[in-house]
Amino acid sequence: MMDLALIKLGGSLITDKDRPYTARPEIIQQLAREIRAIAHQNPHLKLIIGNGAGSFGHQSAKKYNTINGMTTDTDKLGFCVVHQDSIDLNRLLTQAFLQATLPVISLPPVTLAVTQNKQLIKFDCSAIENTLEAGLIPLIFGDVVLDKKIGSTILSTDKLLTELAKYFHTKTKFRVRLINVGNYPGVYDEHGKVISEINPANYLQIKSFIGESKSLDVTGGMLGKVEEFLAISYLGIDCWIIDGNIPGNLTGAVLGKPILGTFIGNSSKQDNYEHS
Amino acid sequence: MMDLALIKLGGSLITDKDRPYTARPEIIQQLAREIRAIAHQNPHLKLIIGNGAGSFGHQSAKKYNTINGMTTDTDKLGFCVVHQDSIDLNRLLTQAFLQATLPVISLPPVTLAVTQNKQLIKFDCSAIENTLEAGLIPLIFGDVVLDKKIGSTILSTDKLLTELAKYFHTKTKFRVRLINVGNYPGVYDEHGKVISEINPANYLQIKSFIGESKSLDVTGGMLGKVEEFLAISYLGIDCWIIDGNIPGNLTGAVLGKPILGTFIGNSSKQDNYEHS
Repeated sequence: MMDLALIKLGGSLITDKDRPYTARPEIIQQLAREIRAIAHQNPHLKLIIGNGAGSFGHQSAKKYNTINGMTTDTDKLGFCVVHQDSIDLNRLLTQAFLQATLPVISLPPVTLAVTQNKQLIKFDCSAIENTLEAGLIPLIFGDVVLDKKIGSTILSTDKLLTELAKYFHTKTKFRVRLINVGNYPGVYDEHGKVISEINPANYLQIKSFIGESKSLDVTGGMLGKVEEFLAISYLGIDCWIIDGNIPGNLTGAVLGKPILGTFIGNSSKQDNYEHS
Repeated sequence: MMDLALIKLGGSLITDKDRPYTARPEIIQQLAREIRAIAHQNPHLKLIIGNGAGSFGHQSAKKYNTINGMTTDTDKLGFCVVHQDSIDLNRLLTQAFLQATLPVISLPPVTLAVTQNKQLIKFDCSAIENTLEAGLIPLIFGDVVLDKKIGSTILSTDKLLTELAKYFHTKTKFRVRLINVGNYPGVYDEHGKVISEINPANYLQIKSFIGESKSLDVTGGMLGKVEEFLAISYLGIDCWIIDGNIPGNLTGAVLGKPILGTFIGNSSKQDNYEHS
């Protein structure tokens, strides 16, 4: 059985979310180096990377309200601008990964997914699967998509990665885990302390403490994220929400070592996780 | 019946083919303005644009020999670098088009096509078709693709556009034409004079005069281009090879007006072409 780690690099981590169109190149390079080390030390590990839009795509997405549809010529131009803003950030990551000799190929979700009334009705995973099989690292990102009913919407990186997690989980050859690497140490409780584990048993208690994103985020912020992850944890896919500012944290999560952060899933599984 | 114009912007036109990674921004902006004028004056006309790799992708494609397969880690990184070089040029076009208020979406062929021994075995046109139907302008480019037998190859913009021409030609609602906009006034005869028409009757006579590209071009140059176009002209798709340095030339070709350049198809059809 092959290990597949889906790594989400949060928009809040790789950009300054409060300064439009401002990336954080040092963090991006640090992550690229850490992922290269992980890949070199674990040649059989498969990786899919996704990045949030941060202060790039969310700015124009808000301006054009692309998530809620597309009718006028301005909406159409806006759709393209939001996509291009997302590509611009994604390109900075691609460049850093290539420089770190990681063979990444950016596969824009606009070419793969279609929605109807914001619900995913098509997500062609074959290009991503072929890329993985060829020994490359697929790179995706939250993107605009065409919507059969309202014209357009936006699919978050979290949504896309959880769909991919489900897709590869059903392929019995993959043991899938999803790691959300953010600009925060995990999910906070009401006292500002990191919740070490969220599972179906404690979620209803915890839910009210989980706030919306303070910055501009058209796709739901922390609450949306936790709900996406909890939904796939039911299937047996382990998820982590960890702080990407701390070197080694991502490595720990990918390799199943104890780390600080929030685990979403079934704790008995976490303890028993054996990396192979 | 809807008119669909597939426009190829040649690598030799939009880049300086003899200076690595050097675009020609003035020409790109001029083309963007001309295409905007065409689109505004013909709101029912559908457009698909493709661009050649010029001195961007061809450099790295030659270095890594990506067209002939992918085995080693260096080949894999090379595959990604060639793609990224192509994206870098394509992005300059996208930016110019968006600035000209043309709603273009770049759809990387690596996400859409698969080959086997360099032969196309899958080309999912649905993303391109959905984009067209949504009133946007799909933008493609010559790209690396995964190959089921040899690992990797490269599909030229000409190949991709002729495949799209065939696809949309079989949809009875489209009248398709393909316009190759280059850095040359057409196809030259043995005396250096532009051949005004190439058709099945005169092709064998003409073939020996058509040279290979003088610059670095991994995908076949002029001879390859003419053969791709002649193959679809048999189906009734009209093709032009025109000089993109002359303002108004592209407009003439798209609207079926008499222009200088080489017509590939059936001359009686050209004379009778009515734009609707």
